Amino acid sequence: MADTLPNFYAVIPAGGIGSRLWPLSRADAPKFLHDLTGSGQTLLRDTWDRLEPLAGADRIAVVTGRAHRAAVEEQLPGIPDRNVFLESDPRESAAAIGLAAAILVRREPDVIIGSFAADHVIRGTRTFEFAVQQAVAVAREGYICTIGIQPSEPSVGFGYMRKDGELIVDGAPEAAVVERFVEKPDLDTAKEYFADRSYLWNAGMFISRADVLLAEIAENAPDLHAGLIELAEVWDDRERRGPVVDRVWPTLPKIAIDYVVAEPAAEKGRLAVIPGHFDWDDVGDFASLAKLNSHGRNELAILGKNARILSDAASGIVVSQTSRVISLIGVKDIVVVDTDDALLVTTSEHAQRVKGVVDALKLTGRGDVL
Amino acid sequence: MADTLPNFYAVIPAGGIGSRLWPLSRADAPKFLHDLTGSGQTLLRDTWDRLEPLAGADRIAVVTGRAHRAAVEEQLPGIPDRNVFLESDPRESAAAIGLAAAILVRREPDVIIGSFAADHVIRGTRTFEFAVQQAVAVAREGYICTIGIQPSEPSVGFGYMRKDGELIVDGAPEAAVVERFVEKPDLDTAKEYFADRSYLWNAGMFISRADVLLAEIAENAPDLHAGLIELAEVWDDRERRGPVVDRVWPTLPKIAIDYVVAEPAAEKGRLAVIPGHFDWDDVGDFASLAKLNSHGRNELAILGKNARILSDAASGIVVSQTSRVISLIGVKDIVVVDTDDALLVTTSEHAQRVKGVVDALKLTGRGDVL
Repeated sequence: MADTLPNFYAVIPAGGIGSRLWPLSRADAPKFLHDLTGSGQTLLRDTWDRLEPLAGADRIAVVTGRAHRAAVEEQLPGIPDRNVFLESDPRESAAAIGLAAAILVRREPDVIIGSFAADHVIRGTRTFEFAVQQAVAVAREGYICTIGIQPSEPSVGFGYMRKDGELIVDGAPEAAVVERFVEKPDLDTAKEYFADRSYLWNAGMFISRADVLLAEIAENAPDLHAGLIELAEVWDDRERRGPVVDRVWPTLPKIAIDYVVAEPAAEKGRLAVIPGHFDWDDVGDFASLAKLNSHGRNELAILGKNARILSDAASGIVVSQTSRVISLIGVKDIVVVDTDDALLVTTSEHAQRVKGVVDALKLTGRGDVL
Repeated sequence: MADTLPNFYAVIPAGGIGSRLWPLSRADAPKFLHDLTGSGQTLLRDTWDRLEPLAGADRIAVVTGRAHRAAVEEQLPGIPDRNVFLESDPRESAAAIGLAAAILVRREPDVIIGSFAADHVIRGTRTFEFAVQQAVAVAREGYICTIGIQPSEPSVGFGYMRKDGELIVDGAPEAAVVERFVEKPDLDTAKEYFADRSYLWNAGMFISRADVLLAEIAENAPDLHAGLIELAEVWDDRERRGPVVDRVWPTLPKIAIDYVVAEPAAEKGRLAVIPGHFDWDDVGDFASLAKLNSHGRNELAILGKNARILSDAASGIVVSQTSRVISLIGVKDIVVVDTDDALLVTTSEHAQRVKGVVDALKLTGRGDVL
């Protein structure tokens, strides 16, 4: 794209450890700080690079935990200091995105914000840009706009949105109204949705005028809204900010933006969607990571710089953060994650159960490896 | 047993790395220096403890490589210095056992030696002792006597010996003559042998008068015999030994004792056998190690002191030499061997292929982990 999108500000919520990717993802090395595609850079940096042509380096904000400030700034040397919004502790997506909206709308009343997770994988730059461009046009009209992913398979791993009638907006030929949200379906239902092209995956991308977003939060979560406004009023005043954050932040309700913004807006016919035709993956577990990195069903994908890996009729994925020799013999669809202080061995089939191990480690006092 | 067996001298050939147990077994940490049963001590020490009541601590000799001298002496503090026979380099079992026979017969012309591998697992002390006691009685009569293991399953992993008519020897009620040796059979043949109780596993234990053993070597491998006699003549003379070893040892033919002693003796009706009713395992690969250590089909066996192992519906074996947290989810019959510089993941089914990995590591210049 030649120019950035007028009024557009990109917001990257960089929170969430990604427990299903333990022991790769850790409290001090969350998913967004990893290279999960072999691109040579972190998912956070990939996200930045994707948004920079759309918003400009001065108009990307990151909402992240205090513990990750240094890592985020190292990854994104071009980010202005004032665009790193630090959370005292995790308060879920409505607080994170709402805070960014509240701060940015004070700086710039007609700002249109678009929030994009720091730890998703997207392939297809042009189609992504075209989708955001359309979404911004729709947002300008007062809609809350999401980008729904055109399903590439009948996945049971994602929520779906059903698009309804066309929405006539200049510059957004693919815009539609979202009729309803559907939670993760069973396989039969997913197959139906896949066949019926009006269902899209909910990828958690929201583009809207900041004032419209805040109005929706005010209506559905007035306490959260009040807290965010109070925080925003002092945010850009370094001297006043600290005490207010210390007092207000811990009181913010923990709730997902889907519940306080997207679903209520959909009910009122105010949620729009642009179908995204690009490849998208939230890399939710090692099965997803394996698929993302493998070139064939019977191949072994390798993530990491370890060149001392020997496979004899093995398939699946090895993630190695060590320089140990790793030898896999005859194991199919295997998942091996090799780190200095923890080793995971499972299969794609059981990848969803990794979170249970993390819970068990917490309960049994082995939190040192989380 | 109250007393040791008259004239009996135990010989423990402690050689062989156990490549199929890589990366647990290494050139500098061969199989016999590992605790493979969770007993808390090495297989070598287990072997010593088994033989000490039969021979006495002063009458056990170990034949091992120079590199393992310190480890052997650490494991066996009771061994007399003069009973550690050091090989300059590995020359197979006929040279190792033949050397011991040649040295010991000079010290004690009517000695009866029994050789027992340093890295096998035996359970059932009393039945083992009774078998050796009988074998010594048979050996005293001039036979070369082996202890054949009564098969506990139709294994295709071992060679078999067919016992023929009874042998009338006082103090050896179970003695029989060996009619023939059979190489590792296919499964159908193994089932036949298992049903026919006259077939026993060849466990590589040989008990015989040293002079009888040497005569057999002289007949079937005269070069080897000549070399061994030359070595033995100077062995107990520290000043003369060095140059002779340096000159003669490298010329010794590499050959297994089965070929130069047991099989030719069997052909002449001079090989006897005592059936061993104890549990025996040569721990030839990780499948065998898993079976040896597991308490049930669907359990996960753990070898090593690592207490930070989590299993969620996993079965097989984990061998851990590190203190890393190891988490296994849903993997069945898995073999995970976790060491500081190498990791192996395979299944019992593919355990025999570990040797191929070792070969590949040699060929690709990663010998540092062997």
